[in-house]
Amino acid sequence: MTGVPSIDPRSGRTVEIVAEETTTEQVGAICSAALAAAGPLEDLGRDGRAALLDDLATALEAQRDRIVEVADRETALGTVRLNGELSRTCYQLRLFSEVLRDGGYLEVTIDRPGDTPMGPRPDLRRMLVPIGPVAVFGAGNFPLAFSVPGGDTASAIAAGSPVVLKAHHSHPATSQLCYEILAEASRKAGAPEGTFGIVHGLRAGADLVAHPAIRAVGFTGSVTGGRALLAIIEQRPEPIPFYGELSSLNPVIVTPAAVADRAERIGAEFAASFTLGAGQFCTKPGLLFVPAGADGDRLVTAIQEAIADLEPMVMLNNGIATSYQQGTSALAAAAAGASAHSQLTPGDTRDQTVSDQPARATPLLFTASAAALPPEATEECFGPVTVVARWTDEAELFAALDGLPPSLTATVHRGSGETDLPAELTHRLRSRTGRLVYDGYPTGVAVAWAQHHGGPWPATNTQHTSVGATAIRRFLRPVTWQNAPADLLPPELRDEYDSVPRRIDGVLHTRL
Amino acid sequence: MTGVPSIDPRSGRTVEIVAEETTTEQVGAICSAALAAAGPLEDLGRDGRAALLDDLATALEAQRDRIVEVADRETALGTVRLNGELSRTCYQLRLFSEVLRDGGYLEVTIDRPGDTPMGPRPDLRRMLVPIGPVAVFGAGNFPLAFSVPGGDTASAIAAGSPVVLKAHHSHPATSQLCYEILAEASRKAGAPEGTFGIVHGLRAGADLVAHPAIRAVGFTGSVTGGRALLAIIEQRPEPIPFYGELSSLNPVIVTPAAVADRAERIGAEFAASFTLGAGQFCTKPGLLFVPAGADGDRLVTAIQEAIADLEPMVMLNNGIATSYQQGTSALAAAAAGASAHSQLTPGDTRDQTVSDQPARATPLLFTASAAALPPEATEECFGPVTVVARWTDEAELFAALDGLPPSLTATVHRGSGETDLPAELTHRLRSRTGRLVYDGYPTGVAVAWAQHHGGPWPATNTQHTSVGATAIRRFLRPVTWQNAPADLLPPELRDEYDSVPRRIDGVLHTRL
Repeated sequence: MTGVPSIDPRSGRTVEIVAEETTTEQVGAICSAALAAAGPLEDLGRDGRAALLDDLATALEAQRDRIVEVADRETALGTVRLNGELSRTCYQLRLFSEVLRDGGYLEVTIDRPGDTPMGPRPDLRRMLVPIGPVAVFGAGNFPLAFSVPGGDTASAIAAGSPVVLKAHHSHPATSQLCYEILAEASRKAGAPEGTFGIVHGLRAGADLVAHPAIRAVGFTGSVTGGRALLAIIEQRPEPIPFYGELSSLNPVIVTPAAVADRAERIGAEFAASFTLGAGQFCTKPGLLFVPAGADGDRLVTAIQEAIADLEPMVMLNNGIATSYQQGTSALAAAAAGASAHSQLTPGDTRDQTVSDQPARATPLLFTASAAALPPEATEECFGPVTVVARWTDEAELFAALDGLPPSLTATVHRGSGETDLPAELTHRLRSRTGRLVYDGYPTGVAVAWAQHHGGPWPATNTQHTSVGATAIRRFLRPVTWQNAPADLLPPELRDEYDSVPRRIDGVLHTRL
Repeated sequence: MTGVPSIDPRSGRTVEIVAEETTTEQVGAICSAALAAAGPLEDLGRDGRAALLDDLATALEAQRDRIVEVADRETALGTVRLNGELSRTCYQLRLFSEVLRDGGYLEVTIDRPGDTPMGPRPDLRRMLVPIGPVAVFGAGNFPLAFSVPGGDTASAIAAGSPVVLKAHHSHPATSQLCYEILAEASRKAGAPEGTFGIVHGLRAGADLVAHPAIRAVGFTGSVTGGRALLAIIEQRPEPIPFYGELSSLNPVIVTPAAVADRAERIGAEFAASFTLGAGQFCTKPGLLFVPAGADGDRLVTAIQEAIADLEPMVMLNNGIATSYQQGTSALAAAAAGASAHSQLTPGDTRDQTVSDQPARATPLLFTASAAALPPEATEECFGPVTVVARWTDEAELFAALDGLPPSLTATVHRGSGETDLPAELTHRLRSRTGRLVYDGYPTGVAVAWAQHHGGPWPATNTQHTSVGATAIRRFLRPVTWQNAPADLLPPELRDEYDSVPRRIDGVLHTRL
């Protein structure tokens, strides 16, 4: 048996052994319990699950101080940020209770029998039903918003799908604590045993994804991790959907009009965005396009000044700190070997390595020519580093944008009332992103009905979102009932039911 | 260069060489043209593409006789069936023009800026946009409804995604002809060059799926074929969505009340269903659960009588005929080696091999005990064969159902007013299918808003449908605009636009 340690990244010391790594047999039992819970969880109905989600939020809030204390000890993210994360998760749980009460997510569609040019049509009634037990892999960088509590968990439970959580090795105590709070609240709310399960350990994560009871996987992490889990799924006799939120560069483009208008302000705000949470955000802006010339120089100077006095930042764990050191060393090497094809130069004068303390990273800025961006500048580097790409004309800018990998976000800063270049940028960026941000920064991802947190590979591997109301769609699948007697239909598909939006004979009706 | 032959399955002779196999370079040029067409096709707008779809239907209908003649020569499906297929495709094209005019498929969602418990929320506006060029693989068994013309093509063009078609080797002349008709009609309608492309040959299909311009793949075919394409996709630097409709057993369960009520009628109708199109339907019922006893015997006798006089049926091609011979031989071997674990017995007295003429198959019926179904009885066998599983009590029936692979459909025949057993069957079958059919047969798949033609693996590999209005969702992806100035928004996301359904601040509004 191998113990799972909870490590304090500020000291590098193991504080406690949280649990034993979950064995294959234990994973099997947990998955079977989840499968057994699927029917009763669905039977709670939309109102029952809406109440459950509200109870889960209340239970997390009741233990807020304890949760934040443990999470801060394990992640060093600070109590302000962690309180915000917990509030966000509770807000998201309550948003999904609204989504359930609204019922539009069911996509209820009814075609009554009738004659068509193709002959008589049967009675067809379609809606979405829960997909079955979901494996949710916690993310290292969001212990409370994309982990045991978070958008994947909230949307799966809302859908009516039990959740088996894979605790992240970087915050196992936080994961275990939150799991226990959710499981107990769930029990008290009358949800079935098995609504929540948790596993610890790398092997247990692989076992989980391979288990036949698991019907979908939610994952926020690296491309490498995502590819490894996808490979396990491809080996299953029955492959299942995998929802991976993987890697994102999040380019920000500043137009000449914008930089003429507010260079210093953009520089200061951008510095705050890329260093937020020690740059450990999937939406961290990793590449900033700034026009060549004096206005652009002012913007770059503003960034340099903003980060000059920042202390080395504690990273989530030594693995991430090491990756940051490797990534920034590669950027520095590209800068040192600058040639016609690789004109990367350090943008500040400080040592470009992480601190020699464990798990700490110095914020860094590199500059390059947009005409000759080295490959290192277009790969995500987790941590407080960004590359400024200077561009001299629009053709150069457009060519550089066309060479970028897709991202979760793409941002345009424009001048007051400016439309031509922003329109062209919108056109070019839309195919490479899931969210277009104007005159702002990508790091805030509001929980809302209209949010989309996704994008073409490598941002994600599907057309779905992991934030916002439509995240629920990942854990549902359509079923059509043909000529079913009314008493065998789910309530929402019966003629007399009218409190959800329904499309009947091709016409959408809102709830009454 | 290798020529692509058009073979007459009735004679086994090559009638003509349709084209040369498409080279890798040619595939590249075709995909590039599709990519170049993506913007202009989207710019046609919803009304423009709705008109285009109507024009495509009209153009196909104008060449109906020629299309049906070529298709019948290549597939031997008969002119009645092929005329029906063409009508179905035209109906589907026109349904998607309705879908476009309605606009609900865009999932327009607007959250206006405001204060939330999480602080100020930006203006967020979400809708679906075209995914980009789509590769559509024609199916051998539906030359006009799931091939060059068909649901994948109609839904992709509706979405605004150009289509590159992979012609099926079993009907290349039909594919080429239909492609030319669609391409010409598309040109006349003002759609961009590159809206349609076509490739021939196995290698060209692999090149197509690997090409970076292709953003999604629609496929109707075997699990083996689907797995091979998925493996190519996994090797891409940027994996893309693959929509495979793969394999389906389509179980039909008859309750004791139903068999007491109408054994002979169900037997005759079932025989017509499993032999329709020589059993070459993804929705062919491959397994029929009939209660043991005299009523059930009458049903089985009715099937035997219905197929006794059927002539050997011409299959689509020699490959399918050979697979049929292998599959039915395996069923016969399982019957011959009947033991406690494998009690399969031939249900009729005729020779259980395909005719020795090329591409012909004799309709066959096997019977087995539901308590000891051999593995061969739960695998799809393409062609006019089915297995009748006799069951003695509900526990035996339920255990057998729980052991079945998921299917596109599952069907229940119940007695007049019967609810208890049908309710239990509905509960058990729903997790294993995408469409529940009552008192009917699965072979008809109506084109409608509420249709779902999909299901858990191996029926399909996603939660999507390839028939009906929501098939369009496969070729779209969401984008959210954050704090965008109105003039950079698509029309449907602007404040004043109100002719599509929109969810605003969480409340769904229908079009005015």
